[in-house]
Amino acid sequence: MYRPQIKVLDCTIRDGGLMNNWNFSKPMVKEVFHGLAQAGVDYVELGYRVDKKMFSPKEFGPWRFCDEEDLRDVAYECDTKVSVMCDVGRTDYDAFLPASESIVSMVRVATYVKDIDKAIHLIKHVKSFGYTVTCNVMAVSTNLEPDLDEALDQLAESEADVVYLVDSFGYFYSEQIHYLADKYRAKFPGKELGIHCHDNQRLAFANTIEGIIKNINYVDGSIYGMGRGGGNCTTELLLAFLKNPKFRLAPVLALIEKYFVEMKQELKWGYELPFMLTGSLNKHPRPALAFVKAGIEGKKQSLVDFYNELVGIDDVV
Amino acid sequence: MYRPQIKVLDCTIRDGGLMNNWNFSKPMVKEVFHGLAQAGVDYVELGYRVDKKMFSPKEFGPWRFCDEEDLRDVAYECDTKVSVMCDVGRTDYDAFLPASESIVSMVRVATYVKDIDKAIHLIKHVKSFGYTVTCNVMAVSTNLEPDLDEALDQLAESEADVVYLVDSFGYFYSEQIHYLADKYRAKFPGKELGIHCHDNQRLAFANTIEGIIKNINYVDGSIYGMGRGGGNCTTELLLAFLKNPKFRLAPVLALIEKYFVEMKQELKWGYELPFMLTGSLNKHPRPALAFVKAGIEGKKQSLVDFYNELVGIDDVV
Repeated sequence: MYRPQIKVLDCTIRDGGLMNNWNFSKPMVKEVFHGLAQAGVDYVELGYRVDKKMFSPKEFGPWRFCDEEDLRDVAYECDTKVSVMCDVGRTDYDAFLPASESIVSMVRVATYVKDIDKAIHLIKHVKSFGYTVTCNVMAVSTNLEPDLDEALDQLAESEADVVYLVDSFGYFYSEQIHYLADKYRAKFPGKELGIHCHDNQRLAFANTIEGIIKNINYVDGSIYGMGRGGGNCTTELLLAFLKNPKFRLAPVLALIEKYFVEMKQELKWGYELPFMLTGSLNKHPRPALAFVKAGIEGKKQSLVDFYNELVGIDDVV
Repeated sequence: MYRPQIKVLDCTIRDGGLMNNWNFSKPMVKEVFHGLAQAGVDYVELGYRVDKKMFSPKEFGPWRFCDEEDLRDVAYECDTKVSVMCDVGRTDYDAFLPASESIVSMVRVATYVKDIDKAIHLIKHVKSFGYTVTCNVMAVSTNLEPDLDEALDQLAESEADVVYLVDSFGYFYSEQIHYLADKYRAKFPGKELGIHCHDNQRLAFANTIEGIIKNINYVDGSIYGMGRGGGNCTTELLLAFLKNPKFRLAPVLALIEKYFVEMKQELKWGYELPFMLTGSLNKHPRPALAFVKAGIEGKKQSLVDFYNELVGIDDVV
């Protein structure tokens, strides 16, 4: 029997936008929203809402800013809801309409452990407009346990409806997911939990399943895994796995065939070895992104040299 | 603390050969063996040993047959041992030297549940030459439980040293691996267990880890995941994950860069959607291989049509 509480959130445009500066055309994003709605996906995250005083609309596509009118050009009222993500320290507090006047249903606040006080302040602010609000605590594979515990304890007192376990670097495997899911479950008895995994070590789908086994109900995917670096759990694997009869795979397959196979060849997210290496070493994908970008630009480097730089040793082959 | 009993077997040439009819050049296979030996891999499987009366050496490369002299051209005596695989019903019983005279240390007998009696006969024969012998029971995701139980009970009485849990179609996820690992552990108290996973749903590495957690000691990988259809657990992920200090990643990275990135672009194993679909539906990859081959030959079909054929419904997007 399937678990009706499970909500699939597709973050293709938001997380995938990190690979192309959110330069998705409006007709394409409209088709993506429509296809995901047909597939029965619960939430479609259409981008970040960042402060235009900090990032210029001349340099980024509209899904970096998620203005209400841009969202309404591509999404419509239906069972599939719209979410946007806000980064702590990059959000314009004046950018929110009352939820009743907005196409946005859910706002996800992304934060590092060190910024948890700012995150809680932003969560309170966004919640006052009537949105469902989540907190996505990033990069927890890099925190000392007491720091993580303190942040989660604070968050437990916040207005956040959902707290996400986030494996930003694609570092965790099942035993670690279980450990953290147990911790989060204990810290947040009154809240829903979510999980957002990266696929650097090809463990994003597996870890998401482990989250589901541990009673996490909000699960993130992206079409063809599009996302920064190693990419995400793929939405198509989630829909093929989940047993809720409302989910349909074909509309997502059609989108992949039309748009994403070609984009992936160009932008190279997913199981590329530089991302595998940063993931397995619990490092930010930044150096891997630079390595891949250099390769795309024809300035190919040796992967073994890159690895040796990452681990800081001279390993003679 | 690492578990010294864990043995990594690389099956790149054997399983990967299914994608190119074993047409790897001798210098290349020699480099692969040497690189894997430097990496500390315990076993390198250099191919199938099939009956030349059934398959013509004119149609396949030498790694379909694994003649002793061909193996000695590429491998040498060292801590890294050579294995070959034999298929039930395709093996020439006269093709084995005494183990003491052969570069081969281990022979893996692959069988379906229905052929278990033939497999046990072959295992007895091979064991009489002094080899370490394994039995790889394929496609167990498709058997009725009593049939599987009967086959495993028979196998428990056989001379096989190691029994492999094999997810031929890339269908299983963690809970199923746990269930089967418990079953195999109970059936084979005196034998070692192995695990061989396919990556159709990007779960090969995750499932291999689950096998390790369940005290399975023989784990299969292939370089860059090269293998039929969805490919295998990658050797590089295994080596990056395992904590035994004898393992070194750099030699495998060097091989990938030199040979496998380009081969994968041409041969298209791994997370291609047709293989994902057959895996998630617990089907043999045959139709997906045909679909991908047609695409390579320029006869592109619609993925949605392919999916609808697989599930046997009309799903209008």
